[in-house]
Amino acid sequence: MSETGRRVTIARLAEFIATALGATGLGAGDAVKVGRLMAECDAIGGDAHGVFRLPQYVRRLKAGGYNARPNIRIAREKTAMAVIDGDNAMGHLVMSRAADLAIDKARNSGVAWVGARYSNHAGPAAIYARMPLAHDMIGVYVAVGSANHLPPWGGTEMLLSTNPIAIAVPSSERPPIVLDMATTVAAYGKVKTLAQRGEPMPEGWMIDRQGRPLTDPGRSAEGFLLPIGGPKGYGLSLMFGILAGALNGAACGREVVDFNADDTSITNTGHFIVAVDIAAFGEVEAFKQEMDRVWSEMKSSPLLPGFDEIRLPGERSHQVELDRRARGVPVHAALDTALGALADDLGIERL
Amino acid sequence: MSETGRRVTIARLAEFIATALGATGLGAGDAVKVGRLMAECDAIGGDAHGVFRLPQYVRRLKAGGYNARPNIRIAREKTAMAVIDGDNAMGHLVMSRAADLAIDKARNSGVAWVGARYSNHAGPAAIYARMPLAHDMIGVYVAVGSANHLPPWGGTEMLLSTNPIAIAVPSSERPPIVLDMATTVAAYGKVKTLAQRGEPMPEGWMIDRQGRPLTDPGRSAEGFLLPIGGPKGYGLSLMFGILAGALNGAACGREVVDFNADDTSITNTGHFIVAVDIAAFGEVEAFKQEMDRVWSEMKSSPLLPGFDEIRLPGERSHQVELDRRARGVPVHAALDTALGALADDLGIERL
Repeated sequence: MSETGRRVTIARLAEFIATALGATGLGAGDAVKVGRLMAECDAIGGDAHGVFRLPQYVRRLKAGGYNARPNIRIAREKTAMAVIDGDNAMGHLVMSRAADLAIDKARNSGVAWVGARYSNHAGPAAIYARMPLAHDMIGVYVAVGSANHLPPWGGTEMLLSTNPIAIAVPSSERPPIVLDMATTVAAYGKVKTLAQRGEPMPEGWMIDRQGRPLTDPGRSAEGFLLPIGGPKGYGLSLMFGILAGALNGAACGREVVDFNADDTSITNTGHFIVAVDIAAFGEVEAFKQEMDRVWSEMKSSPLLPGFDEIRLPGERSHQVELDRRARGVPVHAALDTALGALADDLGIERL
Repeated sequence: MSETGRRVTIARLAEFIATALGATGLGAGDAVKVGRLMAECDAIGGDAHGVFRLPQYVRRLKAGGYNARPNIRIAREKTAMAVIDGDNAMGHLVMSRAADLAIDKARNSGVAWVGARYSNHAGPAAIYARMPLAHDMIGVYVAVGSANHLPPWGGTEMLLSTNPIAIAVPSSERPPIVLDMATTVAAYGKVKTLAQRGEPMPEGWMIDRQGRPLTDPGRSAEGFLLPIGGPKGYGLSLMFGILAGALNGAACGREVVDFNADDTSITNTGHFIVAVDIAAFGEVEAFKQEMDRVWSEMKSSPLLPGFDEIRLPGERSHQVELDRRARGVPVHAALDTALGALADDLGIERL
């Protein structure tokens, strides 16, 4: 994450995105909603998932790869679960609807699990896992990634994606604890970033089709990402693909469409979110104070040589968020140029 | 896992365990139940969690570290969740009760999440995650491990355990897909096994307090286990500790008692299980056939050099199970001797 570039307020960023999406045919209400969520991605430091994605989303909207006037509906429902059919809408619309529904249901049933099919790329996992926090709930979110980047362990055919998980837990005085991770050692976006910079990857991120370490990010098409813990990360990626994909009637395995390379095919992306109402389990404030204790306890550990602090999951993102809410989101020069061209193309005011 | 040693039928193993626990003061019904579950651990290849643990469990029962006459009760409950207070019973009793309750609730609400506190070591995670399978449900099980073996990432104080997760999904013609993994590269039991054999550990399993690779398993007390994917595995271990421990009012972090070293302190072990009713999401048989397809698809990948097959999670365990259900569980000589001494000590018939 580079903090160079002029600063743009989150509100202006959201407005710009909404205007661009509206000018491309998305309904006005939906455009505002996606704009707000994409700007939130940038606000929390998810730079590869915020306004950076706008040119791609616009391209896909124009190509007819999204349904710009979707009928997002509940396809199956019981007390503590639902499956939402996203009708090929932008993923942000589908998953924010799923999160709202999970929160509503969890208020009554204590826990609720809402899956989705016929959705699309929805931005960083943490955005949705964090939604239950404002309701004193824990959020768990899992998605099928939007392109396959790894084979089953021991294989060479890329049948699995980086299928990420995010878990968000509220604290009392401390920031929320928010894990957001791919099941691979590195997310594919990090490989692309190093390729742009012409810098090598560390060993352990990728291997080639002979199983040899691959450290030249420019050769990434010749190999695949390594899962965390070898066969364990393969297992996690597979199970998350089943739970977020197949269980909802969404794509899983070879069916997964490469969202970055293909602007027209229906991706049938799957996700799920679980909302866990803390009040059902015990005293909310006592639990949040316990999270403060856990936070302090982790921080209090003596350090290994070479480390200057212990970080909690989500701590760096929280620091970025504080800075960006106060000072705006940095838009680096290359992105600014691309967004300027996009604005001119759409005939809307530049950012 | 060594397949040397005389073979004992699963039924005889269960009977022996039940007799030993009964002779140590556990109620007759509970002894039979734990015997059956522990023998199941051996049946599916969880050798470090089955009859191997009996001498330790007996020692703890005698020392008063377990409540031999527990009142396991539902402490909190809503439609789709519950928290069970295990009253310091053997963990097998608490978690089988939790699994039964989750299955019952999921039948109505589609999904149900049951946590537990004041439980204890309950054997391999897969045993509980598999329980919903017979009801055409998916099982997800997470536990706080029974001793801390790793620090937060960048630290040196062991504040976290290997907190495992298991996820079990039924198929139609194929075996169920069952992931059962610690959040560390190696489980601690593997380190102990190599120490017994005098063999070195591969680099990447453990580091010492200076951050240097630790490969001598005899020096394991001088270092700690490494989490999968570095900070990612630390994050998973922490979040699982919060969800399975703190959320249920169970131990988390520094509070975790070393169950292997301490036979008397109440461990207040936490776990949770989620049952997901496939019928709520769609056609059960169609989903199971889709799992057959996923199985075949993973198997069909071309192989990396050095591999002779792709394995699905739980496949090896399933092969072991078929063999052991047919031919019995191998009891190697050292274990046989230990169990003989235990039987003599308790005045019961030898295995």
